[in-house]
Amino acid sequence: MNGAELLCDVLLAHDVDTCFANPGTSEMHFVAALDRNPRMRCVLGLSEGVVTGAADGYARMTGKPAATLLHLGPGLANGLANLHNARRANSPIINVVGDHAGYHLPLDAPLTSDIESLARPMSHWVGRASDAALIREVATEAWSQAVSTPGIATLILPADAAWGNAGQQRATPSRQPQPAVLDISRMGEAARALSAPEGVAILLGGRALQGHALELAGRIAAATGVRIFAETGNARMERGAGRVPVDRIPYPVDLAVAFLADVQTLILVGAKPPVAFFAYPGKPGRLTRPDCRIVDVAGRGHDLEAVLEELAERVGASDAVASASAYEADDISALPDGPLTPATIAHIVAATLPDGAVVCDESLTSGADFFARSHTSRPHDFLSLTGGSIGIGIPLATGAAIGAPGRKVVALQADGSGMYTVQGLWTQARERLDVVTIVFANRAYRILETELRNVGVSDAGPNARRMLELVEPSLDWVKLAEGMGVEGRRVDTVAGFRKALSAAFESRGPFLIEAVI
Amino acid sequence: MNGAELLCDVLLAHDVDTCFANPGTSEMHFVAALDRNPRMRCVLGLSEGVVTGAADGYARMTGKPAATLLHLGPGLANGLANLHNARRANSPIINVVGDHAGYHLPLDAPLTSDIESLARPMSHWVGRASDAALIREVATEAWSQAVSTPGIATLILPADAAWGNAGQQRATPSRQPQPAVLDISRMGEAARALSAPEGVAILLGGRALQGHALELAGRIAAATGVRIFAETGNARMERGAGRVPVDRIPYPVDLAVAFLADVQTLILVGAKPPVAFFAYPGKPGRLTRPDCRIVDVAGRGHDLEAVLEELAERVGASDAVASASAYEADDISALPDGPLTPATIAHIVAATLPDGAVVCDESLTSGADFFARSHTSRPHDFLSLTGGSIGIGIPLATGAAIGAPGRKVVALQADGSGMYTVQGLWTQARERLDVVTIVFANRAYRILETELRNVGVSDAGPNARRMLELVEPSLDWVKLAEGMGVEGRRVDTVAGFRKALSAAFESRGPFLIEAVI
Repeated sequence: MNGAELLCDVLLAHDVDTCFANPGTSEMHFVAALDRNPRMRCVLGLSEGVVTGAADGYARMTGKPAATLLHLGPGLANGLANLHNARRANSPIINVVGDHAGYHLPLDAPLTSDIESLARPMSHWVGRASDAALIREVATEAWSQAVSTPGIATLILPADAAWGNAGQQRATPSRQPQPAVLDISRMGEAARALSAPEGVAILLGGRALQGHALELAGRIAAATGVRIFAETGNARMERGAGRVPVDRIPYPVDLAVAFLADVQTLILVGAKPPVAFFAYPGKPGRLTRPDCRIVDVAGRGHDLEAVLEELAERVGASDAVASASAYEADDISALPDGPLTPATIAHIVAATLPDGAVVCDESLTSGADFFARSHTSRPHDFLSLTGGSIGIGIPLATGAAIGAPGRKVVALQADGSGMYTVQGLWTQARERLDVVTIVFANRAYRILETELRNVGVSDAGPNARRMLELVEPSLDWVKLAEGMGVEGRRVDTVAGFRKALSAAFESRGPFLIEAVI
Repeated sequence: MNGAELLCDVLLAHDVDTCFANPGTSEMHFVAALDRNPRMRCVLGLSEGVVTGAADGYARMTGKPAATLLHLGPGLANGLANLHNARRANSPIINVVGDHAGYHLPLDAPLTSDIESLARPMSHWVGRASDAALIREVATEAWSQAVSTPGIATLILPADAAWGNAGQQRATPSRQPQPAVLDISRMGEAARALSAPEGVAILLGGRALQGHALELAGRIAAATGVRIFAETGNARMERGAGRVPVDRIPYPVDLAVAFLADVQTLILVGAKPPVAFFAYPGKPGRLTRPDCRIVDVAGRGHDLEAVLEELAERVGASDAVASASAYEADDISALPDGPLTPATIAHIVAATLPDGAVVCDESLTSGADFFARSHTSRPHDFLSLTGGSIGIGIPLATGAAIGAPGRKVVALQADGSGMYTVQGLWTQARERLDVVTIVFANRAYRILETELRNVGVSDAGPNARRMLELVEPSLDWVKLAEGMGVEGRRVDTVAGFRKALSAAFESRGPFLIEAVI
């Protein structure tokens, strides 16, 4: 057996059975190995941003890593922006990046580049299987790093390791790595803080926003009266009817500072100390007040459910009754017809969202209303932009649909950011994924127009307008979708949108609505 | 004046007056500065691969750098694949990459990443203007590095350096850097080799394939009888009627080895020792025979015209008459109608190519015939894939059209590679560029199908087919083009293609032909 075949076996032995791929010549032995293993589901992306963004969406829904297959340094580079988001989401992913044969590297052939240097900033772990004999060890370590961090493990696979003789080896599963060891003194500090809950709040991140962990956080809040909330961007929040309602720290600095103004002690459970997305002259970087005490109880690598269980017990909240959202039926047929606005779109989506939907949000300026409304939607998962690198929405929805079959995926997609990885629509068509993409077509990088005003330009000239407006020509999203095999419809009225969305929710398969606002 | 304004002034003082841009929040002060300088032409790309690929095309046609404007690490990452190609083309480019304010970096805000680590593999030079007071020095150095290497200079611009006070400074132009100093002993060695020309050949690269340098190479060949040829991928070759015909080293290893089999002494003028694109088991990495003597006379940073002038004089070729191609009129109306093939497309394009056209070639498996035929086309420039990183064709054509106004740009575009940066079509529409894109729609990564057979898979299964075939669904390139404001037409017959191409050559503005083969 060659190294590529062994790598494939090691992945499958660890239940890594989905490979988002955009291969090249140096990966052909691995392609051949995948071809011999029909248990591995190979999903082609027409650009690498689709591949890595889809692996992120898949990981967020399944909790386990997919593999990606990327072609040398440039192929990895194309996928880095969405790996950046995945790294911030702590999504487990195993990147398999081909490289030239080791003996070929010194020749500096045209496609040679320093893959390690490219990989490191967006990877938690980088390794090179420089010989077929090392494949088993390096691949097992990649898996272990991906699931224990959890995060991005990048395995560089030189062609000669892929085609080299690995002997006859049986790939066997490794034990699931243990979660990181908790600093128990922090737990005590948090429990003491919660015993005097005035000015105390809990910031939840990662898995603390899902399932029983979220329920436990809700019990602690109910028993102690402290606020609980989430970071601005979250990998996956369980939301809607029956779930504990959790608010987010707002994105704009001033609003965020106001949101946190009364917090004197902030307990972190799977979250990081909140900081501004960007620096602005004269505005703070840390969003908490300067005298705020931060109690970092547990990070993403800990068992957050166990942490919250323990914390609930220590504060006597184990049997408390968490507040839960209730579904509010909302008669959208009563909405007056007229031009579409982001608010009416949010209203209609929140009111009609199917049970168990997965909402992937890259709506940026257009989608803020949805989150506020979706407390009272039917139960759903909400996946957002964690790293601020735009171009994740369509790929994220693609991967989420593969990771959560049978559930309706709804992508709330700004038009500017949608264009970075528009190629993902083709993968949705190819895989017949049940994704409704709602494009908020405001024909601009609206968020940047606001930022330009923030730096004092109230009357943008031609150069600024040409960099921030998506007009002359406007994009025709219906044609773009149809060009990639996805049915599309353009609407610009409330009634039109309601009808199009209803049709999309009642049918199955990829569908795109260009909502002109 | 703030740092961003000073940076803009320094660029303009050095005649850097075009900025391919995809900005973000941290670059807003630079956007504002660009907006105050209407002399700077700002060209928006909807993804960063378009931005960097266009800067490459612009540099190849003008010989001078454009600036790019990229948003932090992820924005740079998206542009790296085409920077890789530009680096291999030795195209001068000045990347301006925004970063967080220096004091904000330690907070590890969501968009924070190690920009230097990302930039280095694809840059010849990386610098950081960590303070407004350093902008002038760092920006001048970036320009100097870009034009003297020539190559990729990446300037990281933290937000606080952009908004910081730079005082009142006048940006003044620097002197053009001197070319690298030549090792004159190599010149003597080459001249001696040429005096016994049996088994001697000259490999030309970079500017040696253009203008008077190419003419001089032709005179040396005529006077001595040695072969001259070019590397497989070249930034820009001047081709067609009136130009010295130069062949390329073939891409497939076996053909390349055969091509070089009789070369015992290879003189490099702006070229590197030829090596295989990829390693294959049992095949050589170096394409020259093991006993071949390599005489490296001059690299890309040298004045290659002066080098060839001197060499011509030393071998008595200064007044020799170089062979030149002649235009061959070719009656394509006599071509029998029938299904389109890559060969008939090549035939028709070569025969009808307008005088002064710029051909950007990313046709991969489909376009080989064009190069062979284009010796006898009307005079044109031929720009090819230098670094092997696919997804350059549409952006390269976009930038070439901006760099060479008044000339018809023809993009020979494979469908698989075209999809990586399809967003560039929008920029062509926005800037009303005179580009005809011919998509060779074979509905597959055909080059990889061949490579898969090379590794022994003659009967690909579902996994391999799903990674290499672009079907289910097929792409509709006409809709994709129209979705971005570019007129398109689909043809699948010889007559249909001839008619569509004729219409495209007779009109102005962007046009796309989906040639189904």
